Amino acid sequence: MPGFPRRSAGRRLQLPLLCLLFQGATAVLFAAFVRYNHETDPALWHWGNHSNAANEFYFRYPSFQDVHVMVFVGFGFLMAFLQRYGFSSVGFTFLLAAFALQWSTLIQGFLHSFHGGYIYVGVESMINADFCAGAVLISFGAILGKTGPTQLLLMALLEVVLFGINEFVLLSLLGVRDAGGSMTIHTFGAYFGLVLSRVLYRPQLEKNKHRQGSVYYSDLFAMIGTIFLWLFWPSFNSAPSALGDGQHRTALNTYYSLSASTLSTFALSALVGGDGRLDMVHIQNAALAGGVVVGTSGEMMLTPFGALAAGFLAGTVSTLGYKFFTPILESRFKIQDTCGVHNLHGMPGILGALLGVLVAGLATHEAYGDGLENVFPLIAEGQRSATSQAVHQLFGLFVTLTFASVGAGLGGLLLKLPFLDSPPDSQCFEDQIYWEVPGELEEEAQGPLRTKEPDTRA
Amino acid sequence: MPGFPRRSAGRRLQLPLLCLLFQGATAVLFAAFVRYNHETDPALWHWGNHSNAANEFYFRYPSFQDVHVMVFVGFGFLMAFLQRYGFSSVGFTFLLAAFALQWSTLIQGFLHSFHGGYIYVGVESMINADFCAGAVLISFGAILGKTGPTQLLLMALLEVVLFGINEFVLLSLLGVRDAGGSMTIHTFGAYFGLVLSRVLYRPQLEKNKHRQGSVYYSDLFAMIGTIFLWLFWPSFNSAPSALGDGQHRTALNTYYSLSASTLSTFALSALVGGDGRLDMVHIQNAALAGGVVVGTSGEMMLTPFGALAAGFLAGTVSTLGYKFFTPILESRFKIQDTCGVHNLHGMPGILGALLGVLVAGLATHEAYGDGLENVFPLIAEGQRSATSQAVHQLFGLFVTLTFASVGAGLGGLLLKLPFLDSPPDSQCFEDQIYWEVPGELEEEAQGPLRTKEPDTRA
Amino acid sequence: MPGFPRRSAGRRLQLPLLCLLFQGATAVLFAAFVRYNHETDPALWHWGNHSNAANEFYFRYPSFQDVHVMVFVGFGFLMAFLQRYGFSSVGFTFLLAAFALQWSTLIQGFLHSFHGGYIYVGVESMINADFCAGAVLISFGAILGKTGPTQLLLMALLEVVLFGINEFVLLSLLGVRDAGGSMTIHTFGAYFGLVLSRVLYRPQLEKNKHRQGSVYYSDLFAMIGTIFLWLFWPSFNSAPSALGDGQHRTALNTYYSLSASTLSTFALSALVGGDGRLDMVHIQNAALAGGVVVGTSGEMMLTPFGALAAGFLAGTVSTLGYKFFTPILESRFKIQDTCGVHNLHGMPGILGALLGVLVAGLATHEAYGDGLENVFPLIAEGQRSATSQAVHQLFGLFVTLTFASVGAGLGGLLLKLPFLDSPPDSQCFEDQIYWEVPGELEEEAQGPLRTKEPDTRA
Repeated sequence: MPGFPRRSAGRRLQLPLLCLLFQGATAVLFAAFVRYNHETDPALWHWGNHSNAANEFYFRYPSFQDVHVMVFVGFGFLMAFLQRYGFSSVGFTFLLAAFALQWSTLIQGFLHSFHGGYIYVGVESMINADFCAGAVLISFGAILGKTGPTQLLLMALLEVVLFGINEFVLLSLLGVRDAGGSMTIHTFGAYFGLVLSRVLYRPQLEKNKHRQGSVYYSDLFAMIGTIFLWLFWPSFNSAPSALGDGQHRTALNTYYSLSASTLSTFALSALVGGDGRLDMVHIQNAALAGGVVVGTSGEMMLTPFGALAAGFLAGTVSTLGYKFFTPILESRFKIQDTCGVHNLHGMPGILGALLGVLVAGLATHEAYGDGLENVFPLIAEGQRSATSQAVHQLFGLFVTLTFASVGAGLGGLLLKLPFLDSPPDSQCFEDQIYWEVPGELEEEAQGPLRTKEPDTRA
Repeated sequence: MPGFPRRSAGRRLQLPLLCLLFQGATAVLFAAFVRYNHETDPALWHWGNHSNAANEFYFRYPSFQDVHVMVFVGFGFLMAFLQRYGFSSVGFTFLLAAFALQWSTLIQGFLHSFHGGYIYVGVESMINADFCAGAVLISFGAILGKTGPTQLLLMALLEVVLFGINEFVLLSLLGVRDAGGSMTIHTFGAYFGLVLSRVLYRPQLEKNKHRQGSVYYSDLFAMIGTIFLWLFWPSFNSAPSALGDGQHRTALNTYYSLSASTLSTFALSALVGGDGRLDMVHIQNAALAGGVVVGTSGEMMLTPFGALAAGFLAGTVSTLGYKFFTPILESRFKIQDTCGVHNLHGMPGILGALLGVLVAGLATHEAYGDGLENVFPLIAEGQRSATSQAVHQLFGLFVTLTFASVGAGLGGLLLKLPFLDSPPDSQCFEDQIYWEVPGELEEEAQGPLRTKEPDTRA
Repeated sequence: MPGFPRRSAGRRLQLPLLCLLFQGATAVLFAAFVRYNHETDPALWHWGNHSNAANEFYFRYPSFQDVHVMVFVGFGFLMAFLQRYGFSSVGFTFLLAAFALQWSTLIQGFLHSFHGGYIYVGVESMINADFCAGAVLISFGAILGKTGPTQLLLMALLEVVLFGINEFVLLSLLGVRDAGGSMTIHTFGAYFGLVLSRVLYRPQLEKNKHRQGSVYYSDLFAMIGTIFLWLFWPSFNSAPSALGDGQHRTALNTYYSLSASTLSTFALSALVGGDGRLDMVHIQNAALAGGVVVGTSGEMMLTPFGALAAGFLAGTVSTLGYKFFTPILESRFKIQDTCGVHNLHGMPGILGALLGVLVAGLATHEAYGDGLENVFPLIAEGQRSATSQAVHQLFGLFVTLTFASVGAGLGGLLLKLPFLDSPPDSQCFEDQIYWEVPGELEEEAQGPLRTKEPDTRA
């Protein structure tokens, strides 16, 4: 293709070799360690005297499918807003998530369900693996367009391990509650990506400003991502909750929170927009903040009003973040946050963690009745007071921020290895370096670009 | 943006202030009245001696999610067929539905589940709230492109209340059966929108004819809406049906009815099309009429053949409506029905109500066995004959038409308040008045327009 | 429309008349034969002493909905990659599947559930009908762009019957296991389509080469199809499996297999691509091969490692097929395989059948415990050894290939009937012959075409 620098064989071969290596390695580890659990193994399941209706599959699989759609369709298309980076957004999401879910099955398995030398898998491990893939994709959002697929796979390799350890520390060691992952998924994924973006700072990126925007149809594709994320977020937060009232209440709270964040996003977007116009970036992203903000507290006694208030606040903070904070993040802190994950996952994630601190601190035996055992087992068993649970929740937030920041610092150094196939500044936010793009785009896409670079026309 | 009139501060601030006001008001009302029901409250649920598997969540939530997709993806993208109104179609659907579901939770709660001073919520209230949002979006379809978001929110404010009262009169006072809402949702939403469109009649709209059509990709986006609506309609109609055979039979009937309306739509579209060509407008809309027409009778003993026949008829009537009746509606009755909701929801809704009259009138103890209690409790309990039930069903249709027409008449006067931020004729069907549209569209969109207005080129 | 030949009335009327005839005929047959089964009939269901929670609906309907999305959204949009054939891809998928599911309900009903003169229907018949529609759409993929809707309906008429008979021979007569349809759906559908394409060979198609490619947005629409197929494939393979561990294990195996085929597809695509670039055709298709390859063995004791290995192999073979084998298929064997169904469904289907032979041959009472009854009832009951089951599985593959090839040979002769409304070579891969296409396309689409046909410009 004229005008595009050919890559050396050493760079061209990185992606295929890394894919083959990673797939081979996970396959070997699967062979050694991964086994069907008692709900998926025919001998184990039929040895017990269960009714088939009692199989976990029927309680979790519909939620899993919704989460699965969010991870692949939701994140993939949400990131397809860039005018010349749709193939990469959707395609690399596909690749990264497909690797992350295998790798995470191993890491989370070693940490959470390693018994007698084996990892046992079923629908719960599928949900957890998809959750981890979600965190990786959040980080991807911060560095979208500025990294090659090899770098992204290496990021996933590292991030999945750190995600698993952080999750283990929070949920298993600290007894923190975080069903929908305000901390473990959103805060972790966002700050991991932001610190990574800081380390990979590219001062010359301004020149590509035209490619960092959307065009009409790319915005509509992105809305497919937004709407599916919005619709299935109640399933996301409730997927790992306790069965019965736990899943039910979590879904309901998330539903209310999202509806409120949508209204506050429209309000704020019109308020701060030029001539009162709405900005698609806000609608596509900030309207989702209501799902993030109740990730921790959604299973608790948040109350329907509490869900509305939380969502309202999250939508407001997120929209204002896009308008006022993202520019500062780049100019002052040298953090180029392509998708604004700080506004959608970072700040709302922290708010969600703090809301969890508050609602946990207010927990009483009276409010939860015998359901307390499911939401706060340590309080129900008398091992902890509500205040102590709240303090643990808060500590979990700091642990998460620490893991994300330090881990991403190391990750950034890894991704800066000079032989890695990273796109040059001039080819950032551009599909053609990694994809065979059908002819028309070249013609069409050059058009609008030229019109914005008058000096090249003369 | 050059060429676009700037709006005054009074108009620019209407949307943000209305969003904030409405969200604030619903939040206050939620705080005062809305509580978790016994399936979502941990203390209440665990006080009873239920198995977690018995929680309503597992029987209704998958259906709810399908309905949710229909309301937000289905209606949103179906209306995105307009070439320069995709942001508004998808975005205002998002806004309207997010408000309507909160507001409807309150209104339906006061009317249907107000006990001891509180509204109790759970997955059934989520389904009902989404149903009401669906009716609001049907009305939106009739006035699409000709109203601003402020007007739409005011419409929703009024329509949700009227929807709730009409539903209460039909289901609770008259004992009418209408699980899938042929009357309460489709007929009500369509005629509300049509009367509204009549009151808001704009004689000068002809000039915008070029913007009222589709372009190639906008038609493909609209097909996303169509197909998801078509796929999940069996869940829509069956979501509130009685558990067990009721939900199962309703889904099955809807599945057959839709497949028949698809074939009749293709047949009729090719038959009346120029040179035998198919018209995307028909395929996108009339193929769905099979879902509308079995909304009332889907849970009854319609029989598989009855479902096919009903769907066939609905697809036929709907396609012919688009071809022959919509033009008359505008020229003769001054009703500008942007999406043709009269053809997709209006006529098939009335047909569906009449089909319900017929099938209810044929109900026998023999055909339904002990299942009669679930479908026609009043007949099963001996309070009503099948004929009497049929008469009540018919009366329900007239009540619905009355509520919709009178209510929309009032609504139209409200929406005509001169200070409301309504788009001028020249800016109808145009995203740029309410949205910051990425640059490319301006260039591209002007292109085709100019080629169709040769006099402006000279 | 200038430049397009008008069709004669005899041709124009074929589609509407065939639709009406087919719909009328299925309706009459439904009236005569199709009845609600004991889970959908109110009298039958309530006569038994079931809990409503035991209704098959709750175990199968969520899977059905996922399958439904795959058939209509998945196949429809996957085939929308062609730059000027999006309306036809999505629209004819819609039409074909809507007819096929009715017709298949009858054919499969006569063969599998005909008792006392009636066919009894419920959620299982819905799943099976959708499966058959899937096979028809696979065949459609091979002849995409080269046949008119009348021909496609005739193809469906014939293929559904042959599909039903082949399925009956395999599952009922030979006792072959094939839950996810590696043989009955994928192998059958692919080779039926390929042989059909051979019979309908058009030597002059080269001239349309420019229309057989994609453009940027058509590739993104196709990715919607890909991703939804990928996401819901675990539901596809597990939809008809035994309840409990059977469905659970099948979903899990498919999930792993797909993740591995995704990585191997990315690896191979970059390896064989020009300058190491990824090819969208590979990603859109070969990444799905992991779902096809475990269609037979997914419910068996494949083990998680086995699933990864199978997926890896399938993705590799499929990608290499697109790169090296498809061109030979056309040049050497005169098979023009528009969507490359040989690579996505054909070869992976055969691999999947062989994998089923292997895994069935390794079945032991020890590995399956009491679950053996559900997976291999004939082995569990002592009527067959594992080796004998393996031989039967292998024989099933040959039966399938024979039925598909001979049937498609006959079908090809039917579709070549000279009076059928088949597109001329010059109008292949072109929406405008069957659809009213909005104006813009004509302008836009001519553009890129002209630029590629310099001789017509001069």
